[in-house]
Amino acid sequence: MKYLFTTILGSFVLDDRLTVSEEVPFNSIKDYERKSETENKLRKKYPGLKGLPAEKLSGALASLRDKKYFSPFHRQNLALTKKAIKESVSEDQLIIQTIANINELDKTGNLLVKRLREWYALYFPEIEHRVPHQEKFVELISSRSREQLMKELKVSDTMGANLEKSHVEEIILLANAVAALYKLRKQHETYLEKVMKQYCPNLLELGGTTIGAKLLELGKGLKRLALLPASTIQLLGAEKALFRHITSGSRSPKYGILYQHPLVQKAGKDQRGKMARMLADKLSLCARLDYFKGEFKAKEYRLGLEGKV
Amino acid sequence: MKYLFTTILGSFVLDDRLTVSEEVPFNSIKDYERKSETENKLRKKYPGLKGLPAEKLSGALASLRDKKYFSPFHRQNLALTKKAIKESVSEDQLIIQTIANINELDKTGNLLVKRLREWYALYFPEIEHRVPHQEKFVELISSRSREQLMKELKVSDTMGANLEKSHVEEIILLANAVAALYKLRKQHETYLEKVMKQYCPNLLELGGTTIGAKLLELGKGLKRLALLPASTIQLLGAEKALFRHITSGSRSPKYGILYQHPLVQKAGKDQRGKMARMLADKLSLCARLDYFKGEFKAKEYRLGLEGKV
Repeated sequence: MKYLFTTILGSFVLDDRLTVSEEVPFNSIKDYERKSETENKLRKKYPGLKGLPAEKLSGALASLRDKKYFSPFHRQNLALTKKAIKESVSEDQLIIQTIANINELDKTGNLLVKRLREWYALYFPEIEHRVPHQEKFVELISSRSREQLMKELKVSDTMGANLEKSHVEEIILLANAVAALYKLRKQHETYLEKVMKQYCPNLLELGGTTIGAKLLELGKGLKRLALLPASTIQLLGAEKALFRHITSGSRSPKYGILYQHPLVQKAGKDQRGKMARMLADKLSLCARLDYFKGEFKAKEYRLGLEGKV
Repeated sequence: MKYLFTTILGSFVLDDRLTVSEEVPFNSIKDYERKSETENKLRKKYPGLKGLPAEKLSGALASLRDKKYFSPFHRQNLALTKKAIKESVSEDQLIIQTIANINELDKTGNLLVKRLREWYALYFPEIEHRVPHQEKFVELISSRSREQLMKELKVSDTMGANLEKSHVEEIILLANAVAALYKLRKQHETYLEKVMKQYCPNLLELGGTTIGAKLLELGKGLKRLALLPASTIQLLGAEKALFRHITSGSRSPKYGILYQHPLVQKAGKDQRGKMARMLADKLSLCARLDYFKGEFKAKEYRLGLEGKV
């Protein structure tokens, strides 16, 4: 009676005392991946060769406990782990990194534009309340001179100092940098949408780019998100309020990140909790459809929910 | 007996009952600024015209309390205030804005480079510990491909995923943005130095660009800095520790922002407090020299202090 036993070290033919009678060592992970070829060859050579029964496993491993196997085992194991790490990067991580970076860009953009407003106010304070929109403000001051702005905004006289050109240019450098950050944010969003369209079209359609990606981030990847119950998805991003509810008995939260979703926003104040629940239901289905490569149903879901607002 | 009395409204000739006998109204702030011309003309016209004695001021003002003066008074006062605001912007504010912005750029640069490292680690994790310097890291990944980097850093194999070009490009966009922020920081520093060389050469020479500008920020301008005692300058930036010392009796701080100065850094640990005191002494002198447009003595001071390390 002979047994066939294959590990990352190689394919082994064991006799009934479980000692090695023939071995075909694997020199690389590629050999290991083509192990079935090797096994077939050995099966042809030894007719009646059996697979190793489970109860004999520890005995078989004991006969491989030999110093000569230590270094190939280390080498093969390392290579296998490296390969697994290399292949573990999925769209999940790319999406999560991108949305995290978009959030970071929002934060840093805000910080810098506040500085920019303060600095530019030395030169032209009247613009401050006339252009409250941050992006518009940055675009205006980086593309127009103070004289042009005064004309456009109908300001006849300014209390700002008549700074020399070199001083103004320094402020404009900052404005250009902030404008570049805004532009990068937009590029990231386009990229994110492209990746999500491939990877999770349903989630993208119903959740939108930002909320869909945020859900992937909070759910720690599409697989886990698909496995979460809808009620958990409803509360993703409201962890703090949820634990406060559990520990101190304050009111339970009705929504986390979903609060920002247009459908929840559009619903009446007393309907928002209900809408968040229905939306989470459908988003959960979307995540499952996307994870198991199912059909594209999100549009249907969205229209259904819109009818209920 | 006639008196001459000039306000922003105009020049007035008052008789001894303090009623207006002649007035030359000012129609603009410019007229007011050339008031001495008007006054001279009136003095020629009325020989023996006297300035208004202080005890008659309230009487004179009472005779100007007439409705016809209200609107010109409002107009002139507003114009004068606007002008004062316009002229209140000095190099102080420009320096303070610039150094505040440099600090902001440092902060945001750090945040973004952390994100960049995490993101790029999906693609080439081995670079992480090999290039700890942030700016170097950004420069390397934005200018070289992974293959080039592997060769340069002598990495034979990577655990990073083989991302498609479009994914890698998105990461590099972020790297470029961070590199631009670093560049802007450097430009701001050059600009700051240029402004300070004009405005406060002594402070610049002894304090350096960053610490000199920081002192102006903490001291709220050159004038106030020049008036501060050296012991206060020594503790600028250590306000928290100082108040803790006062309220809870913990040990008194020996230095604030001056801790970062090379002279204090170079001094032995037990000498740092002493060095900070001597440095603050000289910096205080520097601020005074700069404010009162005195000579350039900072180099002398610096050499003297360096001899004492």
